[in-house]
Amino acid sequence: MASDIILYWGSGSGPCWRAMICLEEKGLSDYTSKYISFDNKENKSDEVLKINPRGQAPTFKHGDVIVNESIAICLYLENTFKSQGTKLVPDDPGQQALVLQRAVESHNLHETVYDVLLYFFSTKPEDRTEAMLEEKRKACHKELQMWEGYLAKLGDGSYIAGKNFNLADACTFPFIATLVRMGFNMSRYPHLAKYYDLVKDRPSVKASWPPLWKDTPNKDFLKVI
Amino acid sequence: MASDIILYWGSGSGPCWRAMICLEEKGLSDYTSKYISFDNKENKSDEVLKINPRGQAPTFKHGDVIVNESIAICLYLENTFKSQGTKLVPDDPGQQALVLQRAVESHNLHETVYDVLLYFFSTKPEDRTEAMLEEKRKACHKELQMWEGYLAKLGDGSYIAGKNFNLADACTFPFIATLVRMGFNMSRYPHLAKYYDLVKDRPSVKASWPPLWKDTPNKDFLKVI
Repeated sequence: MASDIILYWGSGSGPCWRAMICLEEKGLSDYTSKYISFDNKENKSDEVLKINPRGQAPTFKHGDVIVNESIAICLYLENTFKSQGTKLVPDDPGQQALVLQRAVESHNLHETVYDVLLYFFSTKPEDRTEAMLEEKRKACHKELQMWEGYLAKLGDGSYIAGKNFNLADACTFPFIATLVRMGFNMSRYPHLAKYYDLVKDRPSVKASWPPLWKDTPNKDFLKVI
Repeated sequence: MASDIILYWGSGSGPCWRAMICLEEKGLSDYTSKYISFDNKENKSDEVLKINPRGQAPTFKHGDVIVNESIAICLYLENTFKSQGTKLVPDDPGQQALVLQRAVESHNLHETVYDVLLYFFSTKPEDRTEAMLEEKRKACHKELQMWEGYLAKLGDGSYIAGKNFNLADACTFPFIATLVRMGFNMSRYPHLAKYYDLVKDRPSVKASWPPLWKDTPNKDFLKVI
């Protein structure tokens, strides 16, 4: 019974997607799903602000328990529903360390990906400079090389922090998928390309795929990265 | 026995301080402490890069286990040394949720505090504008009001996420202390002022206090915030 869980989420938001993947993985797909439109500023509605004073999504409530930071939501779901669904944090200390490290480290991916996207979407074309764009592209490229290296080290068929899907994948995959959506050239990152193919059809990921992305072709903003 | 734990840290770094506080709280004060100078770029040395490809501090190793993200280090220490020292993550689901939320949420405090400080320290005086400074001050003020509100709601004598010191304090306090160090006017935030006084003399905090801060007076960069 997950109907006492409420998640406010926006389509295409990586942090929201993290929480949605974990809800599915823990067998909680009957949670109360509240779609909010960022364009209509519904994240700043009284209903959301009452639970999340930052007016952001995800906004999450389970009974009287409120958690709004996406990584904290994922950890809370794992701790609270430990015995059901996918084990998101392994018990083995070494494996657990790697999973926690990559899950938290994914904020770097989050920041660099959103930084270049915001520059495209929130800066007027006349205010954008090729030099600044190049700088942000380079930062994104450097960040992607880091993750490409992690996957190369783990070997073919690996998830982001080992042989099984876990918290680190839930935290990382949404930003890899965002890159693909925005036209990211996968051929330069063969391990990331394989990783994307490995995870994209996973039931939890398909069930939570951003609705706005389903019926429209991918963009080509990032094809040069 | 914590001598198989190595921590590379830089003085005054909030993320390093988080890990150092948790090491002390878990009774692991005999860890191998490796001070590195950011000014001398020792975080980019081969010794550090071998463990932490991002060349950042903290860089943490326990036997063969490597964890470098500060919040992940703190979680790892709690999980690995659960039965000793301070309980950093409570078992009660509601309390645990609040602790995880505030611990992860402290990245907002981290970012706004460092954003205004970097503007002071890394921008040439002739390139700084009063308008940009005012914008960063306002962001910092808004962020501080958020935490002031959390403390007000919890009541006098509270820690940042409840009645006891925990992970959320280890993650948050270093940035409050950074503000004080930089001349932050405490009188406008009475609950944060009380919180600072409550935590500053705690043994784990005193033992890990940034050495460079001990023998020099506080700065006055942020006195107008």
